Order: sequence, then C-alpha cells, then structure tokens
Amino acid sequence: MTRTVAVFGAGRIGRIHAANLAALPGVQVRYVCDPVADSAASLAQSVGAQVASIDDAVGDPAVEIVAITSPTDTHSELINRAAAARKHIFCEKPIDLSVPRAVACAEAVKAAGVACMIGFQRRFDPTFNEAKQRLAAGEIGEPEMLVITSRDPGAPPVHYLKASGGIFRDMLIHDFDVCRWILGDEVEWVSATGSCLVDPAIEEAGDIDTAAVTLRTKSGKLCQINTSRRAAYGYDQRFEVLGSKGLLACGNHRPSEVVQMDASGVHHDKPEHFFLQRYREAYRLEVAHFFECLQSGAPFRTTIADGVAAQKLADAASESWKSGQAVTL
Amino acid sequence: MTRTVAVFGAGRIGRIHAANLAALPGVQVRYVCDPVADSAASLAQSVGAQVASIDDAVGDPAVEIVAITSPTDTHSELINRAAAARKHIFCEKPIDLSVPRAVACAEAVKAAGVACMIGFQRRFDPTFNEAKQRLAAGEIGEPEMLVITSRDPGAPPVHYLKASGGIFRDMLIHDFDVCRWILGDEVEWVSATGSCLVDPAIEEAGDIDTAAVTLRTKSGKLCQINTSRRAAYGYDQRFEVLGSKGLLACGNHRPSEVVQMDASGVHHDKPEHFFLQRYREAYRLEVAHFFECLQSGAPFRTTIADGVAAQKLADAASESWKSGQAVTL
Amino acid sequence: MTRTVAVFGAGRIGRIHAANLAALPGVQVRYVCDPVADSAASLAQSVGAQVASIDDAVGDPAVEIVAITSPTDTHSELINRAAAARKHIFCEKPIDLSVPRAVACAEAVKAAGVACMIGFQRRFDPTFNEAKQRLAAGEIGEPEMLVITSRDPGAPPVHYLKASGGIFRDMLIHDFDVCRWILGDEVEWVSATGSCLVDPAIEEAGDIDTAAVTLRTKSGKLCQINTSRRAAYGYDQRFEVLGSKGLLACGNHRPSEVVQMDASGVHHDKPEHFFLQRYREAYRLEVAHFFECLQSGAPFRTTIADGVAAQKLADAASESWKSGQAVTL
Amino acid sequence: MTRTVAVFGAGRIGRIHAANLAALPGVQVRYVCDPVADSAASLAQSVGAQVASIDDAVGDPAVEIVAITSPTDTHSELINRAAAARKHIFCEKPIDLSVPRAVACAEAVKAAGVACMIGFQRRFDPTFNEAKQRLAAGEIGEPEMLVITSRDPGAPPVHYLKASGGIFRDMLIHDFDVCRWILGDEVEWVSATGSCLVDPAIEEAGDIDTAAVTLRTKSGKLCQINTSRRAAYGYDQRFEVLGSKGLLACGNHRPSEVVQMDASGVHHDKPEHFFLQRYREAYRLEVAHFFECLQSGAPFRTTIADGVAAQKLADAASESWKSGQAVTL
Repeated sequence: MTRTVAVFGAGRIGRIHAANLAALPGVQVRYVCDPVADSAASLAQSVGAQVASIDDAVGDPAVEIVAITSPTDTHSELINRAAAARKHIFCEKPIDLSVPRAVACAEAVKAAGVACMIGFQRRFDPTFNEAKQRLAAGEIGEPEMLVITSRDPGAPPVHYLKASGGIFRDMLIHDFDVCRWILGDEVEWVSATGSCLVDPAIEEAGDIDTAAVTLRTKSGKLCQINTSRRAAYGYDQRFEVLGSKGLLACGNHRPSEVVQMDASGVHHDKPEHFFLQRYREAYRLEVAHFFECLQSGAPFRTTIADGVAAQKLADAASESWKSGQAVTL
Repeated sequence: MTRTVAVFGAGRIGRIHAANLAALPGVQVRYVCDPVADSAASLAQSVGAQVASIDDAVGDPAVEIVAITSPTDTHSELINRAAAARKHIFCEKPIDLSVPRAVACAEAVKAAGVACMIGFQRRFDPTFNEAKQRLAAGEIGEPEMLVITSRDPGAPPVHYLKASGGIFRDMLIHDFDVCRWILGDEVEWVSATGSCLVDPAIEEAGDIDTAAVTLRTKSGKLCQINTSRRAAYGYDQRFEVLGSKGLLACGNHRPSEVVQMDASGVHHDKPEHFFLQRYREAYRLEVAHFFECLQSGAPFRTTIADGVAAQKLADAASESWKSGQAVTL
Repeated sequence: MTRTVAVFGAGRIGRIHAANLAALPGVQVRYVCDPVADSAASLAQSVGAQVASIDDAVGDPAVEIVAITSPTDTHSELINRAAAARKHIFCEKPIDLSVPRAVACAEAVKAAGVACMIGFQRRFDPTFNEAKQRLAAGEIGEPEMLVITSRDPGAPPVHYLKASGGIFRDMLIHDFDVCRWILGDEVEWVSATGSCLVDPAIEEAGDIDTAAVTLRTKSGKLCQINTSRRAAYGYDQRFEVLGSKGLLACGNHRPSEVVQMDASGVHHDKPEHFFLQRYREAYRLEVAHFFECLQSGAPFRTTIADGVAAQKLADAASESWKSGQAVTL
Repeated sequence: MTRTVAVFGAGRIGRIHAANLAALPGVQVRYVCDPVADSAASLAQSVGAQVASIDDAVGDPAVEIVAITSPTDTHSELINRAAAARKHIFCEKPIDLSVPRAVACAEAVKAAGVACMIGFQRRFDPTFNEAKQRLAAGEIGEPEMLVITSRDPGAPPVHYLKASGGIFRDMLIHDFDVCRWILGDEVEWVSATGSCLVDPAIEEAGDIDTAAVTLRTKSGKLCQINTSRRAAYGYDQRFEVLGSKGLLACGNHRPSEVVQMDASGVHHDKPEHFFLQRYREAYRLEVAHFFECLQSGAPFRTTIADGVAAQKLADAASESWKSGQAVTL
C-alpha cells in the first residue's frame, strides 16, 4: 500500500521534507502546493508530483497525509483544514505564535481523530537522540541539570525578525522542547534575561539577540539555555546533561575529521554550517519516524501537545525577559 | 539523456553501488546479473531493474555502462568482456590478483577506448579527500612522511583469506593507493614484515594478520603503513601526512558526538563499525564522480593505471615479507 | 633582601601556600601559627620555620608579610590585626561571610596603607589565565556571554556545610569572581535558583546542592553559572566565553594524555581529582605574583575590592534563590 | 642521612638535573664540575654547592653519587672514573656513541658493584608511564604493534649534527628504548630508511633528517618509528600501542586547555615547546626514582643494560639505512 502525501509549502524546508518523503519506500508525494508557482512546479517535478491548489489537494480523498512546510503564520489554519478533511498531519514547528491558537489546533486534531506530529527535528539528531537513549537506559542516573548552548552563525534580516515572534518564540522554541524531552519533567519556574549586543536594529525592532534562560521543573531539575544570534565560528548546537551518575555531553558535528597542525596551532573543522547541514540526517529520520508510527500505531516522539508546551515556555520566557522577574507556571 | 547501467554482482558491495547508482539523477540501472538468482532478483526489484544474464546485458546496445561488483576472481574477465563490447566500466578494486592480468586489462581498456574507473573509495571519503584538497592547496607545504593506520575489527574466515591473495593484496591494496595519492610520487623502495599474532589458523594458511610496510618514493618521501586484522575497538582508518609546513591528521568517524563522563572515565564513541558504515558517503560520492567525469570528459580520480600501480606495490610488499629483504622497484 | 613571612593556619591550604612560599627565591617563612600544635610543628619543620603564637608573629618587626590560611571565620580578625601591625597581607578567599565585615577589612587595609591580595587562585590557572590574556588581546572581540560549569566531585560533610554560608558563598564565590574578571564589567542583575537533589540532609541544613545563576552586567553582558556539589566523573571546572568574533572554551585538565580504546569505547582520563590537583600550578603562581607585585608596586590581580565584590554577588544570589525573584544591584 | 652528589656538567641538562636533585629531601648537591668556570659557578650557587674539579669531587669520600650531565663524548670516561671510585652513577643518555665502549662501561659498573642508572626520561613521563602501567595491568591484552611518532620542532646546527653520531644514535635512541620498554621483548630484525628533505647541509654532513624504522621482536611484535628533525607545529612526541584487546594512544601535552573557535576554525594549543617543557615532570620524577631505588634496593627502571641495548638498535638501524637492507640481530 502506498501512502499519499500533499506537501504545502515549497520553500527551503519544504524542499528538504519533500525530498525525504519521496525517498521513503511506500510513500508518494502526489501534490505540491505553494502560492509561488515556480517553486511549486520545480519541487513537484523533482519529486514526481503534481502542482495543485490547497483546495484540490485537501479535496482529493486519495491524499491521506498533509505535510505543512509553509510559513509559520499559515500553520494553524492549514492544520485546521487538514484535520477537518481527516488527513494525518506532519507540521513544521511551531504550531502558531499564539498559544491559544495552538491550543485550538490541538483540540481540532483531537476532535478529528487524526494523527499529528510537530517537526522538532532535534529529537531525531543522531547525537542528541543517542544521549536521550542513554539517559533512558539509566547510564548517568537521574537527570539533574541541563545546559543548552544554541547559537546561530548570524542574525537574519530585521524584517524576518519583526515577524518572528521574538527570539524566545523563533529560536529558543527548539531548546524549550529539548529541555522538556531531556529532563522528562514539566517546567514550573522560568527566568529569562537578554541584551542586544549584535545589532542595534534588532533592539529597535523590539527584540534581543543574546539571551539567557533558566528553567526549574516540578521535581527541581534545572535547565540553563544560552543563546545568541551570532557565533562567529558557526552554528553551535550542543547540550550537556548532568545526572546523578555522570554526564552526557553532545558536541557539534563537523564536515570532516581532519586536524591540521601548523605553526599557528592545531586546527579542527568548524561545526557544520547551519541547520540544513547539521540536521540533514535528523530531517530524514523524522519523516521516516512519522510513517513508522502511522504504520505501527505507536505515538509520535513529538506530538502536538509537545508543540503547545514549548510554545507556553516561549511565552513565559518572553514575559520574564520583559518584566525582569521570574514567571511561575 | 538517461545513462543505462548493468550491474554485475548482487552481493554486499553490489547492493551498495546499485542503490547509489539508482539514486543518481539521469542514471538507470537496467540489468542486475548474478549467478545467485535470488540475490539478483531481490536487488533488481529494489532498484527497478531486470534480472539478466551477463551475455544479454553486454549484448544490449542500450547499456552504456557496466558496474563490476562481483567477486575478485571474475573482475578481469568482466573488464575484458565489457571493453570488447565498448561499454564504459566502473570496477570495484582490485582489477585482478595477478599483476600481468591487471596490466592486460588496462591494455584492453585502452585499446577499446572506453572509460574505466577503479573503485578505490577511500579517495572519496570526506575526511581523506579534505586532507588531499588542503595538501594540494599547499596548506602544509610539500608532503614528506605519511603514516597510515589501517585495521579491521576482526579477521574474516580462513577460507576467505585463502582466496584473498594475502594481507598485502587483500587489505593493504587500499593503503598502497592512498600512499601514491597523498604523496603524489611513485614508490621505488618497499620493505615489509609481519607476524601472525591473531589466529594461528591464518599462519597455517600461509598468511599473516599483523603487518608493517615502509615505502620510499623516488623523491625520498616516506610512508609507513601499520595494519592488523583485529582491532578490539573497531574499524581503525586513519592517516597523518607530515609536510614541510605542518601536519594533516585524518581521524576516524564516529556514530555520534556524545561524550559520556562517569565514575569510570570520559568516553567517546568507537569508530563507525566497518567499511560499509565508514565509507557509506565515499561509495555514494565515487559513483557520482564516475558520472560527472563521463559527462565532462575529465579524468577519473582513480584510473585503471592506479589499480595496476597499487597491485604492483602489493606484490612488492608480499615479496619483501617473504624474503625478509627490501625490494627495489 | 629576604622577605619574611608568617603563615597563619597549618591546615590543608596552609601547607600548600607555605610550601610554595618557601620555594620562592628571596622569601623566608619565619613563623607558622596554628592552634593545633602538631600541625604547626610539622609544617614549620618542613619549611624551615619556627612555631609561634599569632601575637609573637605579629609583634616581630622582622615579619613583613602575613599569609592568612586559617579557617574562614578567622580571616577578618586576622586581616585587621595584620593591617594594624603594618604587615602586607595575602589572605585566602573569602574575606568574611559577612559583607559589612569584609568591607570593614577593606577599609582597615586601606587606612593602614598595606598591600592585601585575596587568593582567588583560578585567575592564575594556566588555562583560565590564557583565555583571559587572549580576550584582553582582542582575539574574540568583545565578550558577550560567559557560561561557567563548576562542579565538585562530591558534597562535603553536612557539619561543614552548616558553617559554610551556603552554596553561593562557599562554592560559587570563585565563579562570581571569574564572572567579573572575564566580562570586565560590574553586575547589575542577578537571578538564582536551585534544588536539593544530591542529599536530603543538605536541604534539612537549609542549603541546596544544585544551583543555576544568571547575571547581567551594566553593559548587558550575560553570565550563566551552573553548579553541583556532586559530579560523578570528578571535579569539573570549565568556562566558555563568547565574544563578538569567536569563543574561548577552557577545558578540564587531565592527569595524563592517554586515550584507551577497547571493546567498550574510547576512553580519556577523568579531570584532575580536586582543587589541590587542578589548581596546584595556580596556587604556585599566585604567591609568586604576590611577591612580584610587592617588588614592582604593580597592583595585584585579585585585590581586596575584588573579594568584597564577589561577596556581594554571593549575597545577591542567595537572596534571589530564597525569594525566587531577581535582585537588582 | 643526607646523600651527597657531585654533578658533572653545568650545561642545559645539567641545570635541570641539579635543580631537581637539590629539591629532593635528603639530597645535597655538594659539587658542580664544569670546564666552563662561569657555568659551574652559577649553577653551584643556585643549588648551594661548591665548584670543584672532577678529581677533587671523585676524590672526596663524602661524595656518594655522581650525576653525569656533561657532553656525550665524556660520558664513558666519567662512568669509568666514578665506578673506579665506587660512586653510584646517574648518567644522561647515551652511555657512548660506540657500542663497545658502552659495553665496557657496563662491565666496569658491574665489576665495581655500584648502581648505575641511564637517563631515559621518557619512561618517567606521566603519559607514557601511565600507558606502560595499563599495559602491565593487562588492560589491552598482549602488545602487538607499536607506532612511535617522534619529531623535533627544528633541526639543530649542522656542527652539532656532525658530532651527534647521526639521527639514529642522536634522536631515535629514545625511541629504541621506548620500543623495548613497551613491547617488553628483544628486537631481532631492523629495517631503516630515510631521506634528507629538510636541509641539504644535513645530507652534505652525511646524515638524514627524515627517517622510518621498522623493528620486529623475537616473538613477532612489530614497531614502526617515524621521525623528522622538523615539525612546523612543534615537538611531536606520541606513541600508540595496539594490543590484543585494545589500544593505548599517548598524545602530546599542551600548555593550556583553551580551545579557541573563530571564523577561521577551532584551534587548540600546539604541543609543549620542546623537551625541556614536555619532559619537565619526567626529569623530576626520574631523579626521584633514582634515590628511591638506592634507598630500597629495587632495580632502576632504566639500567645501563638498557642503555647498551638501545645503542645496539641505533647501530643496526644506521647500518640498515646505509645498506638499504634489513639487519638481523
């Protein structure tokens, strides 16, 4: 049996997901939908699909699954339409920048009885997931403290930032999800602070580019997240979890394992360039996981409830930053 | 235009190459040929090809390219048949365990005017190739000394070893190719020694399992190769090249970048399990390179002449080991 | 000219400092004072000094310098006595658990016109100081974010903790000093939280064993400190400073550079056991620095004002932890 | 009881040893002897000794021990004189560039019944010795293959090289000792080759600057040594020993554990500058070992027999290099 997918969104992340979907055995990408006709056509051709309108794609009973890879502000409406049409849903994070709208989506999905997975790809990264597996196997005992370093190689254009919901919703949403995933507990206390040190235009836009968040869970586990829009050495994606019996440290991935030694020192490669490189394998594994779960009936590793929970933490951090005081959930 | 390939050999390495070929845009695997009918059928199905006899595949004028991934002792005959039929050839290493037969293949290929690439996949490994690129760019000056560590995780069955041509032809053939590639010079002096330390049955079979080879090139560059059939910690594939201005060291690849620290120490992953894992990306890149060169007319990175040259070094090392004395080429 | 020192305190840290002092050319340890007669006698013998009472030592005009290495609760009184007697002072951290008393000491020292250095030995650690030098040289631009990992191998006895002033004053005092030193700016906002995850007896004693602190400086630089009384893998002392042009990461020191690879993985040494090992060289360098500054008149790297400032941050963190809210300085 | 030492030689290595000797409890350096009067006086003052002639020092019955740290060509005569005077002997490597003279020294020492240790300091290096201890504890099973990388940061002046006995006797003597120490077996087969790639003046002086040696022991263990007079990245001192159950790899030591990441890559420190830095701790530990053995009667870790054996391997390697053929011992 072939599972048939419609892909909504033919931009950068849409192309990644569509190619991974098309390479899965037993999966057919039937439609690609995007208001930019050229993008839709080009992607459709490369995966052997047709260009269609969202109406047509949703209306085709042969389409079992919808993959939402369009801009953030379209996610919630598309989730609702897909749920209403009884399609299973794979949706890129976030559900929506508004927590109430995200909650409404979760309710719509539940009411429709469809499956819905949110694309927090970091949970599928070979390094991060290996750490999670070892943690689950008890190799370092009970987790107590998580330290996340999450830095982009450079700030996006200010017009992007203005529509992004701010650094906590746009960039740290992944880290909030990692916090909940690794500590295996819900957060009850959030304190955030930050500064604009990279680009004054970001401050003018009402945002910050450098931030520090601390979270404490109900059982007293601690998490610190440090982030910056600009790391001169590249995309820095690491975490360390301290447990009662040891530590698991997740390092960056490198393009090669060449070490160069010369008169100026001993030199390793910089981290892989950006998220498309670092998480290439994670993106592949997460859509494979989606279909394995559909097949087996097992729960997704990243549910729509996880999407809502991360969003609430982003809201709390944002509020804490603005008020200068901690927020209790 | 689609390029049409017949794959000869549906064993372990045949499946790797066939899948990589089938995933290349503009390439069609039309036939899979293997005396084991089930293997042929299974592989043919997975890449959308038909099962055929070698006669039929070679006889089909629509077949432009032959990929030889069958057992070593069939390579030279298949190269000759493919050349006679004016097919371009991709052939797994080695050409043949006999240098005269390998030379004859090279002559047949030249006479037929077909392209022929030998699959020394290490030259396509992202780490090894990055080192080569930096060397070529002059980052460490002129190469002077190469140290190659090449160890398998465990010895194959003795019946395999008996047909293998011995450790120098079976296992070090890759290292001899790396030596020529990295030092960029021809060898004029070879000294080899070895012992049987892993399994006495290997000694009874007339072979050794632990070996040390030193080579000196015409311009005085030096290379040392150390090898073992058994490294308890896994597949160890590294080299270091010292140049007049520095060093390039190529480390092993790891499944993940998790570092675990606990009461017993600080632990990193073992190297990737074996050649199918470590060289997965190299296998993919080498067949892509094959088609890029066919397209552009550029020379292959690993020619049939390279195959012959590596074979001659394996013969010289084997002779040196047996005589206990150095061999001058 | 020989400089003559009286050492107050013959315990663990007193022995370290006395031996380092005695090994300095031009320095003579004349007296060792300690209420435990055996300790005093043993240490005096090993450094060629005499046992004396504090009164006698302070009263000897030949004594130019007093090294205070006694228990914390005696520091402020001894500083005041030494200052009154016009002796130069080297005092182990902290000045006093009470900020007002520490401030009073600073005033007494100033009034007496004597030199006074506080022993924050981390500033003399070869790794940490190398990072500071590179930062000062502009190698990573302006510092923006500091992440400090500071973990002990195990919790001390509860009776020790009860007299320690709590985790922020006892353990993080060093980290607050590192924060000021590395960021080169004064803190204006502190948020701290923590839990008791290691030993319930610590909670009963009114303290915590796992803590997370965030600090923001006047110019908006950020610092996160994570700490635990118990790291199963040993004494973990690292920091990373992100600057506008790069990152400086200070790793742990290891007893040896042996890497062991076996069937269970790739293993490095654990960090050096505890502070006496890790900071052995730092302790040696800091007393050498003390005498170099006395000689040259240059200011100490760690002044009594630094001691007061770190103490104030410890108080603020402690207050923030108790109230659950951020503290503005 | 104080043990009294006369130091013969106040050059670079003499100063190292004299300072380490003087710092040992229960050891007194009574005389420093050196034909360069200023050097002798300066060193004597710094360790609280007197300047003396060798005759006077050897003639003083209070002198129990002679430390020979003078130029190589004086070692054998001084060993013979010290043995004749019934002094215990610590002698820097090598015993003598001539194997017969070295053998004669060993016989003289034996006849006199004095203790004699040869200063192969690498056996006392914390990293190398840790590997040896683990090997002895069986952590990687039986050793099978040793790979030694031994490179200097730059070639010494040609006039030095002319008197040095050549690269195998001057530089690789340490590596031959490491080979015997780590493999725990005697060598029966040696093959060496080399080139002059660094400086043509070295070739004119009849020497080489780049060399590769392979040794096979009686039980079939293998050792490869690669060496160069010039590593642009500094003093490179590493070895890896493969055993039946794993590998022990000894890395270089670094001045600090700072890792710098910036737009040009990820940078570690170069190795410690040269032998005085890298082996500083080893030099300290080896003289301490000398006195511990004198005290306890335990055998030295590096005997005069080890000195003779390493010298024989250097001769064999030199002969192999010149003849182009392997040498069987």
